[in-house]
Amino acid sequence: MSNTGIATDETSRLIASNKVEGTAVYNNQGEKLGSIHNFMVDKLSGRVEYAVLSFGGLFGMGGDYYPLPWDVLTYDTGQGGYVVNLDRAVLEKAPRYTSQNEPSFDRDYGREVHGYYGVDYPY
Amino acid sequence: MSNTGIATDETSRLIASNKVEGTAVYNNQGEKLGSIHNFMVDKLSGRVEYAVLSFGGLFGMGGDYYPLPWDVLTYDTGQGGYVVNLDRAVLEKAPRYTSQNEPSFDRDYGREVHGYYGVDYPY
Repeated sequence: MSNTGIATDETSRLIASNKVEGTAVYNNQGEKLGSIHNFMVDKLSGRVEYAVLSFGGLFGMGGDYYPLPWDVLTYDTGQGGYVVNLDRAVLEKAPRYTSQNEPSFDRDYGREVHGYYGVDYPY
Repeated sequence: MSNTGIATDETSRLIASNKVEGTAVYNNQGEKLGSIHNFMVDKLSGRVEYAVLSFGGLFGMGGDYYPLPWDVLTYDTGQGGYVVNLDRAVLEKAPRYTSQNEPSFDRDYGREVHGYYGVDYPY
């Protein structure tokens, strides 16, 4: 639908899900916040509901996963990574889970996560 | 947006991109056509543009990848897999590539693939 920024780098408009892991996430100050662990995709609509950010031990807390609603992320072709307008302090208090403690991703959880970041939850 | 079929199995409404690989794809006759190799995701919109089907040697042609426009797929919670309304004969003539021969996924390719399956290409 939107062509913004696509024409100049059309061949990399799409990204393979199996190459997403490890993609860097920066904030607006250019600080690397972490990297993408995976995408959580709505099986029915094909929309990516969350890009799950892994802190990867940045704070000595390796293994924490932070689901970020897609609309919180912006892809920055210049930086070659995703940008999220968040302070680290905000992220440190954000909903998170570990691999031993995965949420059910039900609607209550969706509302909690989207509410934390102040974006609409469509379900 | 759509709630169809979600309420009964809400916890599995989302699928992790890193768990998508190997998900079965069936046709309407219940024949297994292959499995999902990966998703090709639009970095900007977060929409899955293609689910890439791997034939996995069903026809002795292992390693061929068939990008299926998302709208061609239906997730069948009963079968626990994706269903695509295609005869194998149609799929055998469909646009494909190998790991040695990945397309650029530019607009011409998008038009070709979507055109083959008779679905709109939004770009």
